[in-house]
Amino acid sequence: MSDPVFDTEIAIIGAGPVGLFAAFQAGMLGLSAVVIDALDFPGGQCGALYPEKPIYDIPGYPRIDAQDLVARLAEQAAPFKPRYLLGRQVTALQPAGVGWRVVAGDTMVTVRAVIVAAGGGAFGPNRPPLQGIAAYEGKSVFYLVRRREDFRGKHVVIAGGGDSAVDWALSLAEVAAKVMVVHRRPKFRAAPESERRLNELAGGGVVELVIPYQLHGIDGANGQIDTVVVQDLDGGERRLPADVLLPFFGLSTSLGPIAQFGLDLEHHHVIVDPATCATSVAGIYAIGDICSYAGKLKLILTGFAEAASAAHAIERRLNPDRPLHFEYSTTRGVPAG
Amino acid sequence: MSDPVFDTEIAIIGAGPVGLFAAFQAGMLGLSAVVIDALDFPGGQCGALYPEKPIYDIPGYPRIDAQDLVARLAEQAAPFKPRYLLGRQVTALQPAGVGWRVVAGDTMVTVRAVIVAAGGGAFGPNRPPLQGIAAYEGKSVFYLVRRREDFRGKHVVIAGGGDSAVDWALSLAEVAAKVMVVHRRPKFRAAPESERRLNELAGGGVVELVIPYQLHGIDGANGQIDTVVVQDLDGGERRLPADVLLPFFGLSTSLGPIAQFGLDLEHHHVIVDPATCATSVAGIYAIGDICSYAGKLKLILTGFAEAASAAHAIERRLNPDRPLHFEYSTTRGVPAG
Repeated sequence: MSDPVFDTEIAIIGAGPVGLFAAFQAGMLGLSAVVIDALDFPGGQCGALYPEKPIYDIPGYPRIDAQDLVARLAEQAAPFKPRYLLGRQVTALQPAGVGWRVVAGDTMVTVRAVIVAAGGGAFGPNRPPLQGIAAYEGKSVFYLVRRREDFRGKHVVIAGGGDSAVDWALSLAEVAAKVMVVHRRPKFRAAPESERRLNELAGGGVVELVIPYQLHGIDGANGQIDTVVVQDLDGGERRLPADVLLPFFGLSTSLGPIAQFGLDLEHHHVIVDPATCATSVAGIYAIGDICSYAGKLKLILTGFAEAASAAHAIERRLNPDRPLHFEYSTTRGVPAG
Repeated sequence: MSDPVFDTEIAIIGAGPVGLFAAFQAGMLGLSAVVIDALDFPGGQCGALYPEKPIYDIPGYPRIDAQDLVARLAEQAAPFKPRYLLGRQVTALQPAGVGWRVVAGDTMVTVRAVIVAAGGGAFGPNRPPLQGIAAYEGKSVFYLVRRREDFRGKHVVIAGGGDSAVDWALSLAEVAAKVMVVHRRPKFRAAPESERRLNELAGGGVVELVIPYQLHGIDGANGQIDTVVVQDLDGGERRLPADVLLPFFGLSTSLGPIAQFGLDLEHHHVIVDPATCATSVAGIYAIGDICSYAGKLKLILTGFAEAASAAHAIERRLNPDRPLHFEYSTTRGVPAG
């Protein structure tokens, strides 16, 4: 995907299962599509949060792993050659002629209709509200661990009380010079066996539990922290020497730029007409977990039906004069893949 | 299934893909179900009309044969142990206490809710409107050929102009004493090569094309015809000696007894509220091809979403005081199969 500017018929925002199936449905109706996602791989939450978790309610699959479902859906859409713009968040949607201009990172796509299939919206790590933290992110503040070896011999401060905090404390204790775990409560929300092992290690010397404290600030220069400042519940302060801070406060979702598209919203969801999945703005449709209407169920299989509904509505909108000829897939098949 | 009378929570009328998935969805919500179908095997049209035809638009299946889809759906519902009443048409639906009494053949089921998933309704052969024909059906009048050998040495009259008529004329010509093909037009609606072969055979002696004629009556006694009476377009009559009549006028569907359930209908479809798939009669829901609402698409995948919708609506109706707790299948899984 090298063109910085191109045209296609439908922009699908969100490469989760429902967005991928929308690309297939568009193709079945002879419409070209680009699928855009902030993540740099398809699958949305399925790919990012629970790739190996089985799903039981996909019709015709008594059990399927999320990542397998995503792979099958991408394969199903493939004969129609959808374009993918991954790792790029849609930052703006502007009226352009009879359609829309979609701005995603360094790319601009002009389309005739938009399908928002963004699930719970863009999601990412919950960032602690520490002044100036952005300057350290990716250099000495990390929200995930890619390579354990990067932490060998380092002074590591981990913040959080869930499984990620506890499991990484246990793991990094084997390579780091020191691991300090900052948590606001004495009790962790982690597997009991992991918590037991953490408390055991804390009796030694590599691991120190800084409890009950919470993050208050960071000091450093040029992207490299040297101190993590923490406070207890009474305002008592401690300064922890640190090479690295790992805040593990979970993931959160937000509508992000979608909230600026001018669509009627309700409780962070996009209101649609269930007959067509049309939003309050002509030419923009919303499907899957992000859309809302009377009786809406947040099931992947419901999103699939909404994808079909939106694709058919767009086809009728773009080709109002084409005779309506409903064909079954058994009659026509799909193009050779 | 030997009990002539039993209770369960939901009766699902129709064992096609959508009815089978409704049984799964009911099970996921802790509701027991019986699936009833006039055909004596599950699958509905998928099983009966195109078992080996590939379907391309089942989400997550780039291609799946209809019979495989049916098998997977039955497997998916199996952990919830739905009961099946096959080969029995629902002939009556009567209010019974807070629910309904469903009469299907020799069985009576008392349920708290009904899901009509009957597709295009019961379907069967189009029967020619000949007086007294019912007395000969299954004895000397057949709508399908089970064993070609049954026709050896017989005088066979085939009526119709499509593939079935032409293909069986070609095939039975090899065993029958005589095959007469009655068709109202000189042109057949069959594969050109088959029609060419039929015309070739008709030049010989075993096959005679009785064209342009149409069926007018039958004579015979005790279930055995001896004469098929045909008329040309001017009323000119011919009497064809015959041991067997095979009318091949295609299949048709009809709502059948469903039309008598008191549901609001529109163009042979049951009108539902798309938020719940509720019909105009409380406690009765309709899903799949038989239901109608604004924007309805006749796709199997749309029927799957409707099945989920109806099951959830029924759960809320039957358990209005149970707190609404929406769980993903990934969280809970299904009972061990």
